[in-house]
Amino acid sequence: MTEAREIHLVRRPKGLPVPEDFALVETTTPDAAEGEVQVEALILSVDPYMRPRLDADQPLDAPMLGGGIGRVVQSRHPTLKDGDLVRHGMGFRDRFVSDGKGLAKLTPDPDLPLTVYMHALGGTGITAYGGLLETGALKDGEQVFVSTAGGAVGSVAAQIAKIKGCHVVGSTGTEDKAAWLRDVVGLDAVINYKAEPLAEALAAATPNGIDVYFENVGGAHLDAALPRMNLHGRIPVCGMISTYNGGGEGVRNLFNMIYKRIRMEGFVSPDFAHLNSAFVADMTGWLKSGRIKYQETLLEGFERAPEGLIGLFEGRNSGKMLIHIRD
Amino acid sequence: MTEAREIHLVRRPKGLPVPEDFALVETTTPDAAEGEVQVEALILSVDPYMRPRLDADQPLDAPMLGGGIGRVVQSRHPTLKDGDLVRHGMGFRDRFVSDGKGLAKLTPDPDLPLTVYMHALGGTGITAYGGLLETGALKDGEQVFVSTAGGAVGSVAAQIAKIKGCHVVGSTGTEDKAAWLRDVVGLDAVINYKAEPLAEALAAATPNGIDVYFENVGGAHLDAALPRMNLHGRIPVCGMISTYNGGGEGVRNLFNMIYKRIRMEGFVSPDFAHLNSAFVADMTGWLKSGRIKYQETLLEGFERAPEGLIGLFEGRNSGKMLIHIRD
Repeated sequence: MTEAREIHLVRRPKGLPVPEDFALVETTTPDAAEGEVQVEALILSVDPYMRPRLDADQPLDAPMLGGGIGRVVQSRHPTLKDGDLVRHGMGFRDRFVSDGKGLAKLTPDPDLPLTVYMHALGGTGITAYGGLLETGALKDGEQVFVSTAGGAVGSVAAQIAKIKGCHVVGSTGTEDKAAWLRDVVGLDAVINYKAEPLAEALAAATPNGIDVYFENVGGAHLDAALPRMNLHGRIPVCGMISTYNGGGEGVRNLFNMIYKRIRMEGFVSPDFAHLNSAFVADMTGWLKSGRIKYQETLLEGFERAPEGLIGLFEGRNSGKMLIHIRD
Repeated sequence: MTEAREIHLVRRPKGLPVPEDFALVETTTPDAAEGEVQVEALILSVDPYMRPRLDADQPLDAPMLGGGIGRVVQSRHPTLKDGDLVRHGMGFRDRFVSDGKGLAKLTPDPDLPLTVYMHALGGTGITAYGGLLETGALKDGEQVFVSTAGGAVGSVAAQIAKIKGCHVVGSTGTEDKAAWLRDVVGLDAVINYKAEPLAEALAAATPNGIDVYFENVGGAHLDAALPRMNLHGRIPVCGMISTYNGGGEGVRNLFNMIYKRIRMEGFVSPDFAHLNSAFVADMTGWLKSGRIKYQETLLEGFERAPEGLIGLFEGRNSGKMLIHIRD
């Protein structure tokens, strides 16, 4: 029996989540029984997809659903050994016991930091890779627009499109992120949608239209993109963050889909399991050669997970938001 | 030289078109020169797709773009003979000369009325057929929702889905059309969206969700359908009539596309040219066996074409709106 901590959802948020919607719960975890492991959390991932779940799928008074990287500290399991690293979907718990189901042993590349396995080489990365190349059916050299291009998924999607020789326009909401996208990542055009009128800026930045709009935002972003789409354009829908907290405007320009034969399609990362080995090979190479750049926002301490989630919707992250618990 | 009449657009409508946006122009048509035919109009087609064109693509002070059936009355053309029937896209003109380009010789089935070649066996029919079976990738026995199921395209789409063994729910805006869909066509459920709350009625009528939503309306209809869509549902977008006159609400439920992996895709009838022979064979059989039923609204007289177009947006048609000029 070991002391353990959990973050619970104790109240369903109205609009933007607030700290009082969550509680830190002190509890205990049993020792690993035969066939089990005990795992301590190293890193937790905080993601936009968590917001809609808070309205329904996430049970109240139970650990927040989510994923992270942990280390086996006690093993009576046939294949997982003490000290093994695992990726898991066990939620916001700093220590837990598992029979191994849902744990994936992780053998990180020694030349890459462990955190990249929570973003560029994790669910974030394969979401961008599959969404752009499979759902979006991107072809080399096309015209691409990525919303929230300064975010975790958006920044990877924008850079994959650059690697594929595309003309890439990104939108973001802060001058810091805009400068990073412009000066470090090297996008062809960057729009700070809080500082300039989005529709006009997008029209000016896409003189040859848009073949693929990698959609993370919805609302006004989608309305700005639709009239710029080219014939047979594609809109892979990764997220619609503007609508998750009950806000945002209704979308009025969908009629553009008809004559332009636009295809718009939702996806989630588990759809791309069949792409995993190609993705890992490509992305490891791109990261080691510096062709994919990234930013991370690491909050220090398990108890700060709710702050991380709330911060995500307030745009307080640069790149992937992570909670660091221990090395 | 023969007297001829044309309907011109003389002013771009603000919102719903009004009679003053159009003018009847008396003119003349030359005799057919070598290689040409002179054609007299028999039937004109009036269609929802015309509305967005009035804002831009339709030239001012020129004949309204559109299609119809005519008869060759003078021929110096190598293959078209006097008395031949042709389908054409020559617009709202009661007589015209052509070199034959864009005219398709029509050999109607003697057991079917000529008017069906302007709807169930024309562009209307192949729009429904291709949109449902190809863009919508309909599978036998699926759950289907069709908006404006009392309209020209909608009523054909709904009946093809019934022929394919599907559970079919239709929406319409008048009690007359609802009764026809319920009692004559035999849909599984019919919603009069002007008489009952759409979202609640649709939820009640689709206990097994929706696999294919054949979209003709947009706005509140799309918002009602999205939460009812099943995993990997498809939304072939044929029209968004609620938005054509600048009205309608913005769409707020698009985030449903993500987790349900919904695919939404626009199309127009020329996309389905490769389906034409299968379509003609299927549809001729379905019409002759009475499996596809239809309604027509025939306005008598060339000069009533603008009234027909305006009436379409006011829901004054039952089924396909046509202008009958002569037998």
